Amino acid sequence: MSTVRSTPDSPCPPESMAAAARRKIRSGQWTAHTSGLADGHVQGNVVILPQALAGDFLRYCQRNPKPCPVLAVGEPGSPLLPTLGHDINICSDVPRYRVWRDGVVVQEPTDITALWQGDLVSFVLGCSFSFEEALIAAGLPLRHIDQGKNVAMYRTNVATQPAGPFGGPMVVSMRPMKPAAAIRAVQVTSRFPDVHGAPVHIGDPALIGIADLSQPDYGDAVEVMADELPVFWACGVTPQAALLQAKPAFCITHSPGCMLITDLLNNQLAAF
Amino acid sequence: MSTVRSTPDSPCPPESMAAAARRKIRSGQWTAHTSGLADGHVQGNVVILPQALAGDFLRYCQRNPKPCPVLAVGEPGSPLLPTLGHDINICSDVPRYRVWRDGVVVQEPTDITALWQGDLVSFVLGCSFSFEEALIAAGLPLRHIDQGKNVAMYRTNVATQPAGPFGGPMVVSMRPMKPAAAIRAVQVTSRFPDVHGAPVHIGDPALIGIADLSQPDYGDAVEVMADELPVFWACGVTPQAALLQAKPAFCITHSPGCMLITDLLNNQLAAF
Repeated sequence: MSTVRSTPDSPCPPESMAAAARRKIRSGQWTAHTSGLADGHVQGNVVILPQALAGDFLRYCQRNPKPCPVLAVGEPGSPLLPTLGHDINICSDVPRYRVWRDGVVVQEPTDITALWQGDLVSFVLGCSFSFEEALIAAGLPLRHIDQGKNVAMYRTNVATQPAGPFGGPMVVSMRPMKPAAAIRAVQVTSRFPDVHGAPVHIGDPALIGIADLSQPDYGDAVEVMADELPVFWACGVTPQAALLQAKPAFCITHSPGCMLITDLLNNQLAAF
Repeated sequence: MSTVRSTPDSPCPPESMAAAARRKIRSGQWTAHTSGLADGHVQGNVVILPQALAGDFLRYCQRNPKPCPVLAVGEPGSPLLPTLGHDINICSDVPRYRVWRDGVVVQEPTDITALWQGDLVSFVLGCSFSFEEALIAAGLPLRHIDQGKNVAMYRTNVATQPAGPFGGPMVVSMRPMKPAAAIRAVQVTSRFPDVHGAPVHIGDPALIGIADLSQPDYGDAVEVMADELPVFWACGVTPQAALLQAKPAFCITHSPGCMLITDLLNNQLAAF
């Protein structure tokens, strides 16, 4: 694991890049997007729900593993996630949260310690940052990153499998690629089923209910050139669309782009 | 390995399906296409060249592994291929051959024992029958098989890497698929690099120099529906296009579709 080198006058063991990033976030020094922080480490989407809804939500994730790949579920009432990092506290280790009441975002705090309740259950879901790192490492250019944009995301007409109050459309992210790169991208992302895995669609956007690629529902539009195919992956915004539909009285998520940084390495997630 | 059950009055060990098929071919009882014979066994494209050209041809294959994946090369002068089957004799175990002189097919015999020369070298190259079996096993329909046709093949504007006198265009086979099936097909065929591996192109045929999908250069046309993508794989006809260009004074190949049946199992070729 990559580490921050300990200085000669420090008797402490070296701190991992992930732990160092979490320390800055926990102390309030970092409240922005986490893209590019602690390179190589798995980042995750966060959903925190009352225990009464947690069973339905976990069933929803189990039925929709491509948009909702579960990396970890906390013990009811505990803010710790020891399988993702020994010192993680979900109340303080995300740069910015969204507090939802009845399906509406009412607050975007940088710490939720004061909001923690004994019946809350934390879910951490895989995120496309992991497979984007693998695509870049494979030499495949990603236009939204080259242009400093958020990835383009679209609500589709593909319904997720509902569970309890959770349901709604699958949301997808789109990356334009030349055909040979699209084929290579299928191979590369197939190795990472825990972070959305292989694409769910290639080519004609209308076949999955997307009328106009230049009008994404979330994120920023990028151009698709004449010699490129739009390649679509299941997206971690899907669970937020499910929360919009379920309208729980109270829940908390991360703010888009402000992820939980874990101690896991992206390469540890590779299936083969 | 699947076997033909020995009868109670036979003291011999059971004969493999592949050996049984070769025995029928060797005896002249089978002189037709080998598609569907000895299910599960690897079949191969055959090229037999004088030793003076063998080095260039092997270099050509090494430089173009997707269209020309080498499964075995015989010893100069020997018609045996022990790594593909203990009893294989390349002079008799292919249902029908093509004898080429100066780049022209002059004869299509069912046995080449009388033509064998001490300087000939046999090459066996992987064939799409292996990955088609894997696609069907994965539940992906193949229209040309459902319609009892040969697969559609096209000369592209993608040049192979030349070696000595060998060169020319890559030939591709095309199978129409719905987008989700195309993604799955990339995964399935990526497991089989020795039999052409992953597709080389998906989508717009014009990008690889194919003007009209309804006019294949070899094989039979199949329709591509509005909700499908054409998916293109490197094809074992590419080396025959290279022979057309090289025009060796003498060489022998199999007749298209009349493959060498080996003792290898398709599943033995899976890379993971």
